[in-house]
Amino acid sequence: MTSREKLVAAIADAGTYLCVGFDPPLDVYRSPDALIEAGRTLVRIASDYCAAFKFNSAFFEAHGGAGFDALAELIASVPERRYVIVDAKRADIGSTAEAYAHALFARLGADAVTVNPYMGRDAVEPFVRTPEQLAFVLAVTSNSGADDFQMLDCGGVPLYEHVVRTFDRTEWRDRLGYVVGATRAELLAAVRKIVGSDVPLLVPGVGAQGGDIAAVLDANAGGIMLVNVSRALHERFAGGTAGEFAAVLDRYRRLLATR
Amino acid sequence: MTSREKLVAAIADAGTYLCVGFDPPLDVYRSPDALIEAGRTLVRIASDYCAAFKFNSAFFEAHGGAGFDALAELIASVPERRYVIVDAKRADIGSTAEAYAHALFARLGADAVTVNPYMGRDAVEPFVRTPEQLAFVLAVTSNSGADDFQMLDCGGVPLYEHVVRTFDRTEWRDRLGYVVGATRAELLAAVRKIVGSDVPLLVPGVGAQGGDIAAVLDANAGGIMLVNVSRALHERFAGGTAGEFAAVLDRYRRLLATR
Repeated sequence: MTSREKLVAAIADAGTYLCVGFDPPLDVYRSPDALIEAGRTLVRIASDYCAAFKFNSAFFEAHGGAGFDALAELIASVPERRYVIVDAKRADIGSTAEAYAHALFARLGADAVTVNPYMGRDAVEPFVRTPEQLAFVLAVTSNSGADDFQMLDCGGVPLYEHVVRTFDRTEWRDRLGYVVGATRAELLAAVRKIVGSDVPLLVPGVGAQGGDIAAVLDANAGGIMLVNVSRALHERFAGGTAGEFAAVLDRYRRLLATR
Repeated sequence: MTSREKLVAAIADAGTYLCVGFDPPLDVYRSPDALIEAGRTLVRIASDYCAAFKFNSAFFEAHGGAGFDALAELIASVPERRYVIVDAKRADIGSTAEAYAHALFARLGADAVTVNPYMGRDAVEPFVRTPEQLAFVLAVTSNSGADDFQMLDCGGVPLYEHVVRTFDRTEWRDRLGYVVGATRAELLAAVRKIVGSDVPLLVPGVGAQGGDIAAVLDANAGGIMLVNVSRALHERFAGGTAGEFAAVLDRYRRLLATR
Protein backbone atom coordinates (compact mmCIF):
# COMPACT_ATOMS: atom_id res chain seq x y z
CA MET A 1 0.00 0.00 0.00
CA THR A 2 1.32 3.45 -0.86
CA SER A 3 1.35 6.17 1.76
CA ARG A 4 -1.45 7.96 -0.06
CA GLU A 5 -3.54 4.78 -0.17
CA LYS A 6 -2.99 4.36 3.56
CA LEU A 7 -4.20 7.93 4.09
CA VAL A 8 -7.31 7.38 1.97
CA ALA A 9 -8.08 4.18 3.88
CA ALA A 10 -7.62 5.93 7.24
CA ILE A 11 -10.02 8.74 6.27
CA ALA A 12 -12.57 6.22 4.97
CA ASP A 13 -12.29 4.07 8.10
CA ALA A 14 -12.70 7.04 10.44
CA GLY A 15 -15.34 8.78 8.32
CA THR A 16 -13.75 12.13 9.13
CA TYR A 17 -10.98 14.45 7.99
CA LEU A 18 -9.97 15.05 11.61
CA CYS A 19 -6.24 14.90 12.31
CA VAL A 20 -5.31 15.19 15.98
CA GLY A 21 -2.17 17.23 16.57
CA PHE A 22 0.04 16.71 19.61
CA ASP A 23 2.24 19.73 20.37
CA PRO A 24 3.11 19.10 24.03
CA PRO A 25 4.45 22.33 25.59
CA LEU A 26 7.68 22.06 27.53
CA ASP A 27 6.29 23.82 30.59
CA VAL A 28 3.42 21.32 30.89
CA TYR A 29 5.28 18.09 30.07
CA ARG A 30 8.57 18.40 31.84
CA SER A 31 10.13 15.03 31.07
CA PRO A 32 10.22 12.50 28.23
CA ASP A 33 8.35 10.06 30.50
CA ALA A 34 5.56 12.61 30.95
CA LEU A 35 5.44 13.01 27.15
CA ILE A 36 5.09 9.29 26.61
CA GLU A 37 2.46 8.83 29.30
CA ALA A 38 0.31 11.73 28.08
CA GLY A 39 0.88 10.87 24.44
CA ARG A 40 -0.16 7.24 24.88
CA THR A 41 -3.37 8.32 26.62
CA LEU A 42 -4.08 10.84 23.87
CA VAL A 43 -3.49 8.25 21.13
CA ARG A 44 -5.60 5.61 22.89
CA ILE A 45 -8.61 7.91 23.33
CA ALA A 46 -8.34 9.87 20.08
CA SER A 47 -7.82 6.86 17.77
CA ASP A 48 -11.58 6.27 17.81
CA TYR A 49 -12.33 9.78 16.59
CA CYS A 50 -9.68 10.75 14.03
CA ALA A 51 -8.13 9.57 10.78
CA ALA A 52 -4.61 10.71 11.60
CA PHE A 53 -2.19 12.06 14.16
CA LYS A 54 0.27 14.87 13.63
CA PHE A 55 3.21 14.94 16.00
CA ASN A 56 5.20 18.12 16.20
CA SER A 57 8.86 17.17 16.24
CA ALA A 58 10.01 20.41 17.93
CA PHE A 59 8.34 19.67 21.24
CA PHE A 60 10.07 16.29 21.44
CA GLU A 61 13.49 17.59 20.35
CA ALA A 62 13.21 20.19 23.11
CA HIS A 63 13.71 17.26 25.53
CA GLY A 64 16.92 16.14 23.81
CA GLY A 65 17.66 12.60 22.68
CA ALA A 66 15.21 11.02 25.12
CA GLY A 67 12.49 13.25 23.67
CA PHE A 68 13.32 12.05 20.17
CA ASP A 69 13.06 8.43 21.34
CA ALA A 70 9.80 9.22 23.15
CA LEU A 71 8.35 10.32 19.82
CA ALA A 72 9.37 7.03 18.21
CA GLU A 73 7.75 5.12 21.08
CA LEU A 74 4.57 7.15 20.81
CA ILE A 75 4.29 6.64 17.06
CA ALA A 76 4.72 2.90 17.57
CA SER A 77 1.62 2.99 19.80
CA VAL A 78 -0.62 4.39 17.04
CA PRO A 79 -2.99 1.75 15.60
CA GLU A 80 -2.05 0.59 12.10
CA ARG A 81 -5.32 1.92 10.64
CA ARG A 82 -4.40 5.50 11.62
CA TYR A 83 -2.07 7.73 9.57
CA VAL A 84 0.95 9.39 11.19
CA ILE A 85 2.44 12.73 10.15
CA VAL A 86 5.66 13.98 11.68
CA ASP A 87 5.52 17.75 11.41
CA ALA A 88 9.22 18.59 11.09
CA LYS A 89 9.30 21.12 8.22
CA ARG A 90 12.69 19.93 6.99
CA ALA A 91 14.49 20.45 3.68
CA ASP A 92 18.18 20.39 2.77
CA ILE A 93 20.56 19.47 -0.03
CA GLY A 94 20.82 15.87 -1.30
CA SER A 95 22.59 13.66 1.21
CA THR A 96 21.41 15.78 4.14
CA ALA A 97 17.79 15.48 3.08
CA GLU A 98 18.34 11.73 2.79
CA ALA A 99 19.57 11.67 6.39
CA TYR A 100 16.49 13.61 7.54
CA ALA A 101 14.24 11.22 5.62
CA HIS A 102 15.96 8.30 7.34
CA ALA A 103 15.41 9.93 10.75
CA LEU A 104 11.74 10.67 10.11
CA PHE A 105 10.55 7.60 8.21
CA ALA A 106 12.90 4.80 9.29
CA ARG A 107 13.72 5.90 12.86
CA LEU A 108 10.47 7.57 13.90
CA GLY A 109 8.04 5.60 11.74
CA ALA A 110 6.20 8.45 10.02
CA ASP A 111 3.78 7.80 7.14
CA ALA A 112 4.27 11.39 6.01
CA VAL A 113 6.32 14.46 6.89
CA THR A 114 6.06 18.19 6.31
CA VAL A 115 8.75 19.85 4.18
CA ASN A 116 9.74 23.41 3.34
CA PRO A 117 9.94 24.35 -0.37
CA TYR A 118 12.42 27.28 -0.24
CA MET A 119 15.47 25.25 -1.31
CA GLY A 120 13.67 23.84 -4.35
CA ARG A 121 12.71 20.48 -5.78
CA ASP A 122 15.98 18.63 -5.15
CA ALA A 123 15.68 19.40 -1.42
CA VAL A 124 12.29 17.66 -1.27
CA GLU A 125 12.75 14.69 -3.60
CA PRO A 126 14.84 12.63 -1.11
CA PHE A 127 11.82 12.60 1.24
CA VAL A 128 9.68 10.72 -1.29
CA ARG A 129 12.01 8.09 -2.76
CA THR A 130 9.56 5.23 -2.13
CA PRO A 131 5.75 4.97 -2.55
CA GLU A 132 5.45 4.36 1.20
CA GLN A 133 6.62 7.94 1.79
CA LEU A 134 4.62 11.14 1.42
CA ALA A 135 5.66 14.76 1.98
CA PHE A 136 3.34 17.70 2.59
CA VAL A 137 5.00 20.76 1.03
CA LEU A 138 4.35 24.04 2.85
CA ALA A 139 2.30 26.26 0.54
CA VAL A 140 0.24 28.67 2.64
CA THR A 141 0.95 28.58 6.36
CA SER A 142 -1.46 29.80 9.04
CA ASN A 143 0.86 32.31 10.75
CA SER A 144 0.86 36.05 10.11
CA GLY A 145 4.35 35.80 8.54
CA ALA A 146 2.76 33.89 5.64
CA ASP A 147 2.25 37.32 4.05
CA ASP A 148 5.97 38.15 4.06
CA PHE A 149 6.92 35.92 1.13
CA GLN A 150 4.23 33.35 0.28
CA MET A 151 1.91 36.01 -1.14
CA LEU A 152 4.58 37.88 -3.14
CA ASP A 153 3.66 38.44 -6.74
CA CYS A 154 6.08 36.43 -8.90
CA GLY A 155 5.26 37.38 -12.45
CA GLY A 156 1.49 37.53 -11.95
CA VAL A 157 1.33 34.46 -9.70
CA PRO A 158 1.76 34.48 -5.92
CA LEU A 159 4.81 32.56 -4.67
CA TYR A 160 2.73 29.87 -2.91
CA GLU A 161 0.96 29.11 -6.18
CA HIS A 162 4.24 28.95 -8.04
CA VAL A 163 5.45 26.48 -5.38
CA VAL A 164 2.39 24.26 -5.81
CA ARG A 165 2.52 24.34 -9.62
CA THR A 166 6.25 23.56 -9.63
CA PHE A 167 5.96 20.53 -7.37
CA ASP A 168 2.75 19.38 -9.05
CA ARG A 169 4.68 19.05 -12.32
CA THR A 170 7.31 16.71 -10.88
CA GLU A 171 7.41 13.00 -11.66
CA TRP A 172 6.82 12.26 -7.98
CA ARG A 173 3.66 14.37 -7.64
CA ASP A 174 1.72 11.29 -6.47
CA ARG A 175 3.85 11.25 -3.32
CA LEU A 176 3.18 14.88 -2.43
CA GLY A 177 0.55 16.84 -0.58
CA TYR A 178 0.37 20.52 0.42
CA VAL A 179 -0.05 22.43 3.66
CA VAL A 180 -2.66 25.18 3.31
CA GLY A 181 -3.85 27.04 6.40
CA ALA A 182 -7.56 27.03 7.21
CA THR A 183 -7.53 30.75 7.88
CA ARG A 184 -7.65 31.45 4.11
CA ALA A 185 -10.27 29.18 2.63
CA GLU A 186 -10.15 30.95 -0.73
CA LEU A 187 -6.49 29.96 -1.12
CA LEU A 188 -7.35 26.40 -0.12
CA ALA A 189 -9.91 26.39 -2.95
CA ALA A 190 -7.27 27.76 -5.33
CA VAL A 191 -4.75 25.02 -4.41
CA ARG A 192 -7.40 22.32 -4.66
CA LYS A 193 -8.27 23.54 -8.13
CA ILE A 194 -4.62 23.33 -9.25
CA VAL A 195 -3.81 19.87 -7.90
CA GLY A 196 -7.15 18.12 -8.34
CA SER A 197 -9.03 16.00 -5.81
CA ASP A 198 -6.53 13.15 -5.43
CA VAL A 199 -3.67 15.17 -3.93
CA PRO A 200 -3.83 15.36 -0.12
CA LEU A 201 -4.07 18.71 1.62
CA LEU A 202 -3.07 19.16 5.24
CA VAL A 203 -5.01 22.01 6.77
CA PRO A 204 -3.92 23.51 10.09
CA GLY A 205 -5.54 26.53 11.71
CA VAL A 206 -9.06 25.53 12.73
CA GLY A 207 -9.97 25.57 16.43
CA ALA A 208 -7.69 27.90 18.39
CA GLN A 209 -6.49 29.71 15.25
CA GLY A 210 -10.07 30.46 14.21
CA GLY A 211 -10.37 28.92 10.73
CA ASP A 212 -13.95 28.31 9.58
CA ILE A 213 -14.64 24.56 9.23
CA ALA A 214 -17.62 24.92 6.88
CA ALA A 215 -15.56 27.15 4.57
CA VAL A 216 -12.71 24.62 4.63
CA LEU A 217 -14.99 21.71 3.71
CA ASP A 218 -16.53 23.77 0.94
CA ALA A 219 -13.13 24.83 -0.45
CA ASN A 220 -11.84 21.26 -0.35
CA ALA A 221 -14.62 20.07 -2.64
CA GLY A 222 -14.40 16.46 -1.50
CA GLY A 223 -10.67 15.97 -2.10
CA ILE A 224 -8.25 14.01 0.08
CA MET A 225 -7.71 16.16 3.15
CA LEU A 226 -6.70 16.18 6.79
CA VAL A 227 -7.77 19.03 9.01
CA ASN A 228 -5.50 19.33 11.99
CA VAL A 229 -6.74 20.40 15.41
CA SER A 230 -4.16 20.74 18.18
CA ARG A 231 -4.58 23.51 20.71
CA ALA A 232 -8.39 23.47 20.91
CA LEU A 233 -8.26 19.76 21.78
CA HIS A 234 -5.32 20.04 24.08
CA GLU A 235 -7.10 22.36 26.50
CA ARG A 236 -9.65 19.63 27.17
CA PHE A 237 -7.03 16.91 27.18
CA ALA A 238 -4.75 18.57 29.74
CA GLY A 239 -7.45 20.33 31.76
CA GLY A 240 -10.44 18.00 31.71
CA THR A 241 -11.56 14.41 32.23
CA ALA A 242 -11.21 11.65 29.61
CA GLY A 243 -14.95 11.99 28.99
CA GLU A 244 -14.69 15.72 28.33
CA PHE A 245 -11.77 15.10 25.96
CA ALA A 246 -13.76 12.43 24.13
CA ALA A 247 -16.69 14.83 23.85
CA VAL A 248 -14.67 17.56 22.18
CA LEU A 249 -13.02 14.98 19.89
CA ASP A 250 -16.46 13.73 18.92
CA ARG A 251 -17.58 17.26 18.16
CA TYR A 252 -14.67 17.84 15.77
CA ARG A 253 -15.08 14.37 14.28
CA ARG A 254 -18.66 15.21 13.36
CA LEU A 255 -17.90 18.74 12.18
CA LEU A 256 -15.27 17.24 9.86
CA ALA A 257 -17.29 14.19 8.76
CA THR A 258 -16.56 13.11 5.19
CA ARG A 259 -20.28 13.04 4.42
CA MET B 1 29.30 38.84 24.88
CA THR B 2 26.72 38.64 22.07
CA SER B 3 26.77 35.75 19.65
CA ARG B 4 28.02 38.06 16.90
CA GLU B 5 30.83 39.34 19.14
CA LYS B 6 31.80 35.75 19.86
CA LEU B 7 31.91 35.08 16.13
CA VAL B 8 34.07 38.13 15.45
CA ALA B 9 36.44 37.10 18.25
CA ALA B 10 36.69 33.55 16.90
CA ILE B 11 37.55 34.77 13.40
CA ALA B 12 40.13 37.20 14.79
CA ASP B 13 41.67 34.54 17.03
CA ALA B 14 41.93 32.01 14.19
CA GLY B 15 42.94 34.56 11.55
CA THR B 16 40.77 32.76 9.02
CA TYR B 17 37.19 32.56 7.78
CA LEU B 18 37.40 28.76 7.73
CA CYS B 19 34.42 26.93 9.21
CA VAL B 20 34.82 23.17 9.42
CA GLY B 21 31.62 21.27 8.66
CA PHE B 22 30.92 17.82 10.04
CA ASP B 23 28.31 15.91 8.02
CA PRO B 24 29.05 12.32 9.07
CA PRO B 25 27.38 9.91 6.60
CA LEU B 26 25.31 7.12 8.08
CA ASP B 27 27.08 4.42 6.06
CA VAL B 28 30.50 5.47 7.38
CA TYR B 29 29.61 6.14 11.01
CA ARG B 30 27.25 3.39 11.96
CA SER B 31 26.69 4.16 15.65
CA PRO B 32 26.40 7.19 17.93
CA ASP B 33 29.62 6.07 19.63
CA ALA B 34 31.41 6.12 16.28
CA LEU B 35 30.05 9.64 15.70
CA ILE B 36 31.34 10.86 19.04
CA GLU B 37 34.74 9.26 18.64
CA ALA B 38 35.29 10.62 15.13
CA GLY B 39 33.77 13.98 15.98
CA ARG B 40 35.99 14.47 19.02
CA THR B 41 39.07 13.70 16.96
CA LEU B 42 37.94 16.09 14.24
CA VAL B 43 37.26 18.88 16.74
CA ARG B 44 40.57 18.35 18.53
CA ILE B 45 42.65 18.55 15.35
CA ALA B 46 40.63 21.17 13.48
CA SER B 47 40.31 23.64 16.38
CA ASP B 48 43.81 24.90 15.61
CA TYR B 49 42.91 25.71 12.01
CA CYS B 50 39.37 27.10 11.95
CA ALA B 51 37.22 29.83 13.46
CA ALA B 52 34.07 27.75 13.69
CA PHE B 53 32.42 24.36 13.38
CA LYS B 54 29.17 23.63 11.61
CA PHE B 55 27.41 20.45 12.68
CA ASN B 56 24.73 19.12 10.42
CA SER B 57 21.83 18.06 12.59
CA ALA B 58 20.38 15.60 10.06
CA PHE B 59 23.28 13.14 10.29
CA PHE B 60 22.91 12.95 14.06
CA GLU B 61 19.10 12.67 14.02
CA ALA B 62 19.50 9.76 11.61
CA HIS B 63 20.85 7.81 14.61
CA GLY B 64 17.78 8.58 16.73
CA GLY B 65 17.85 9.96 20.26
CA ALA B 66 21.38 8.72 20.97
CA GLY B 67 22.54 10.59 17.86
CA PHE B 68 20.95 13.78 19.14
CA ASP B 69 22.73 13.37 22.47
CA ALA B 70 25.99 12.59 20.64
CA LEU B 71 25.74 15.98 18.97
CA ALA B 72 25.32 17.70 22.35
CA GLU B 73 28.36 15.84 23.66
CA LEU B 74 30.41 16.78 20.63
CA ILE B 75 29.49 20.45 20.85
CA ALA B 76 30.49 20.44 24.52
CA SER B 77 33.96 19.32 23.43
CA VAL B 78 34.52 22.40 21.22
CA PRO B 79 36.93 24.93 22.78
CA GLU B 80 35.21 28.08 24.06
CA ARG B 81 37.13 30.29 21.60
CA ARG B 82 35.55 28.52 18.63
CA TYR B 83 32.08 29.30 17.28
CA VAL B 84 29.45 26.56 16.87
CA ILE B 85 26.72 26.52 14.23
CA VAL B 86 24.04 23.86 14.26
CA ASP B 87 22.85 23.55 10.69
CA ALA B 88 19.23 22.53 11.19
CA LYS B 89 17.31 24.78 8.75
CA ARG B 90 14.30 25.03 11.02
CA ALA B 91 11.37 27.47 11.04
CA ASP B 92 7.83 27.16 12.37
CA ILE B 93 5.04 29.16 13.96
CA GLY B 94 5.50 30.84 17.37
CA SER B 95 5.53 28.27 20.17
CA THR B 96 6.94 25.58 17.88
CA ALA B 97 9.85 27.77 16.83
CA GLU B 98 10.46 28.47 20.52
CA ALA B 99 10.68 24.72 21.15
CA TYR B 100 13.16 24.32 18.29
CA ALA B 101 15.22 27.22 19.65
CA HIS B 102 15.25 25.53 23.04
CA ALA B 103 16.42 22.27 21.48
CA LEU B 104 19.19 23.91 19.45
CA PHE B 105 20.54 26.56 21.82
CA ALA B 106 19.75 25.25 25.32
CA ARG B 107 19.93 21.48 24.71
CA LEU B 108 22.65 21.28 22.05
CA GLY B 109 24.63 24.39 22.94
CA ALA B 110 24.71 26.14 19.56
CA ASP B 111 26.04 29.69 19.20
CA ALA B 112 24.06 30.02 15.97
CA VAL B 113 21.60 28.05 13.87
CA THR B 114 20.44 28.07 10.26
CA VAL B 115 16.78 28.93 9.59
CA ASN B 116 14.48 28.83 6.58
CA PRO B 117 12.67 32.07 5.61
CA TYR B 118 9.62 30.68 3.76
CA MET B 119 7.21 31.03 6.71
CA GLY B 120 8.16 34.68 7.29
CA ARG B 121 9.58 36.86 10.03
CA ASP B 122 7.51 35.52 12.93
CA ALA B 123 8.84 32.01 12.25
CA VAL B 124 12.44 33.22 12.68
CA GLU B 125 12.14 35.75 15.52
CA PRO B 126 11.85 33.07 18.28
CA PHE B 127 15.35 31.84 17.33
CA VAL B 128 16.93 35.20 18.23
CA ARG B 129 15.20 36.25 21.44
CA THR B 130 18.49 36.89 23.27
CA PRO B 131 21.77 38.55 22.16
CA GLU B 132 23.56 35.24 22.77
CA GLN B 133 21.61 33.75 19.85
CA LEU B 134 22.20 34.22 16.14
CA ALA B 135 20.34 32.81 13.15
CA PHE B 136 21.65 32.49 9.61
CA VAL B 137 18.67 32.92 7.27
CA LEU B 138 18.83 30.90 4.05
CA ALA B 139 19.12 33.36 1.17
CA VAL B 140 20.91 31.66 -1.74
CA THR B 141 21.62 27.97 -1.25
CA SER B 142 24.30 26.06 -3.12
CA ASN B 143 22.09 23.31 -4.59
CA SER B 144 20.66 23.32 -8.11
CA GLY B 145 17.12 23.70 -6.70
CA ALA B 146 18.08 27.21 -5.60
CA ASP B 147 16.87 28.31 -9.04
CA ASP B 148 13.35 26.98 -8.50
CA PHE B 149 12.17 29.78 -6.19
CA GLN B 150 15.06 31.84 -4.77
CA MET B 151 15.75 33.49 -8.14
CA LEU B 152 12.10 34.19 -9.02
CA ASP B 153 11.44 37.76 -10.03
CA CYS B 154 9.19 39.32 -7.36
CA GLY B 155 8.37 42.78 -8.66
CA GLY B 156 11.79 43.46 -10.13
CA VAL B 157 13.72 41.91 -7.25
CA PRO B 158 14.67 38.24 -6.96
CA LEU B 159 13.05 36.41 -4.03
CA TYR B 160 16.35 35.86 -2.21
CA GLU B 161 17.00 39.60 -2.24
CA HIS B 162 13.50 40.31 -0.99
CA VAL B 163 14.17 37.84 1.85
CA VAL B 164 17.42 39.58 2.81
CA ARG B 165 15.91 43.09 2.63
CA THR B 166 12.88 42.03 4.69
CA PHE B 167 14.92 40.50 7.50
CA ASP B 168 17.50 43.27 7.38
CA ARG B 169 14.76 45.77 8.24
CA THR B 170 13.70 43.95 11.42
CA GLU B 171 14.53 45.24 14.90
CA TRP B 172 16.58 42.12 15.52
CA ARG B 173 18.80 42.47 12.44
CA ASP B 174 21.89 42.49 14.67
CA ARG B 175 21.16 38.87 15.59
CA LEU B 176 20.91 37.68 12.00
CA GLY B 177 23.24 36.47 9.31
CA TYR B 178 22.59 35.01 5.85
CA VAL B 179 23.51 31.82 4.02
CA VAL B 180 24.81 32.53 0.53
CA GLY B 181 26.35 29.73 -1.51
CA ALA B 182 29.90 30.15 -2.78
CA THR B 183 28.94 28.91 -6.22
CA ARG B 184 27.46 32.36 -7.07
CA ALA B 185 29.98 34.95 -5.93
CA GLU B 186 28.09 37.77 -7.69
CA LEU B 187 25.07 37.12 -5.47
CA LEU B 188 27.32 37.04 -2.40
CA ALA B 189 28.56 40.49 -3.42
CA ALA B 190 24.95 41.67 -3.85
CA VAL B 191 23.94 40.44 -0.38
CA ARG B 192 27.04 41.96 1.21
CA LYS B 193 26.18 45.29 -0.37
CA ILE B 194 22.64 45.20 1.06
CA VAL B 195 23.50 44.22 4.63
CA GLY B 196 26.84 45.98 5.09
CA SER B 197 30.06 44.55 6.50
CA ASP B 198 28.91 43.85 10.06
CA VAL B 199 26.28 41.22 9.24
CA PRO B 200 27.73 37.69 9.15
CA LEU B 201 27.50 35.61 6.00
CA LEU B 202 27.75 31.84 6.08
CA VAL B 203 29.11 30.55 2.79
CA PRO B 204 28.84 26.86 1.90
CA GLY B 205 29.89 25.38 -1.40
CA VAL B 206 33.66 25.71 -1.67
CA GLY B 207 35.75 22.55 -1.90
CA ALA B 208 33.71 19.63 -3.20
CA GLN B 209 30.94 21.88 -4.58
CA GLY B 210 33.46 23.88 -6.59
CA GLY B 211 33.00 27.48 -5.39
CA ASP B 212 35.94 29.77 -6.14
CA ILE B 213 37.63 30.93 -2.90
CA ALA B 214 39.29 34.01 -4.39
CA ALA B 215 35.97 35.17 -5.84
CA VAL B 216 34.27 34.61 -2.46
CA LEU B 217 36.88 36.67 -0.58
CA ASP B 218 36.59 39.40 -3.16
CA ALA B 219 32.77 39.46 -3.00
CA ASN B 220 32.80 39.52 0.79
CA ALA B 221 34.82 42.75 0.83
CA GLY B 222 36.19 42.19 4.33
CA GLY B 223 32.85 41.64 6.09
CA ILE B 224 32.12 39.13 8.85
CA MET B 225 32.04 35.74 7.16
CA LEU B 226 32.43 32.03 7.64
CA VAL B 227 33.27 29.83 4.68
CA ASN B 228 32.23 26.27 5.32
CA VAL B 229 34.21 23.31 4.03
CA SER B 230 32.82 19.85 4.73
CA ARG B 231 33.21 17.16 2.12
CA ALA B 232 36.63 18.22 0.81
CA LEU B 233 38.01 17.94 4.34
CA HIS B 234 36.16 14.82 5.22
CA GLU B 235 37.83 12.77 2.52
CA ARG B 236 41.19 13.41 4.18
CA PHE B 237 39.75 12.99 7.66
CA ALA B 238 38.14 9.59 7.01
CA GLY B 239 40.67 8.30 4.51
CA GLY B 240 44.03 9.66 5.62
CA THR B 241 46.33 10.12 8.59
CA ALA B 242 45.98 12.90 11.19
CA GLY B 243 48.94 14.61 9.52
CA GLU B 244 47.28 14.55 6.09
CA PHE B 245 44.07 15.93 7.62
CA ALA B 246 46.02 18.71 9.33
CA ALA B 247 47.74 19.53 6.04
CA VAL B 248 44.48 19.99 4.13
CA LEU B 249 43.05 22.01 7.03
CA ASP B 250 46.11 24.22 6.96
CA ARG B 251 45.72 24.72 3.22
CA TYR B 252 42.11 25.93 3.60
CA ARG B 253 43.05 28.01 6.66
CA ARG B 254 45.60 29.90 4.56
CA LEU B 255 43.38 30.18 1.49
CA LEU B 256 40.75 31.74 3.73
CA ALA B 257 43.09 33.90 5.83
CA THR B 258 41.53 37.17 6.98
CA ARG B 259 44.57 39.10 5.72
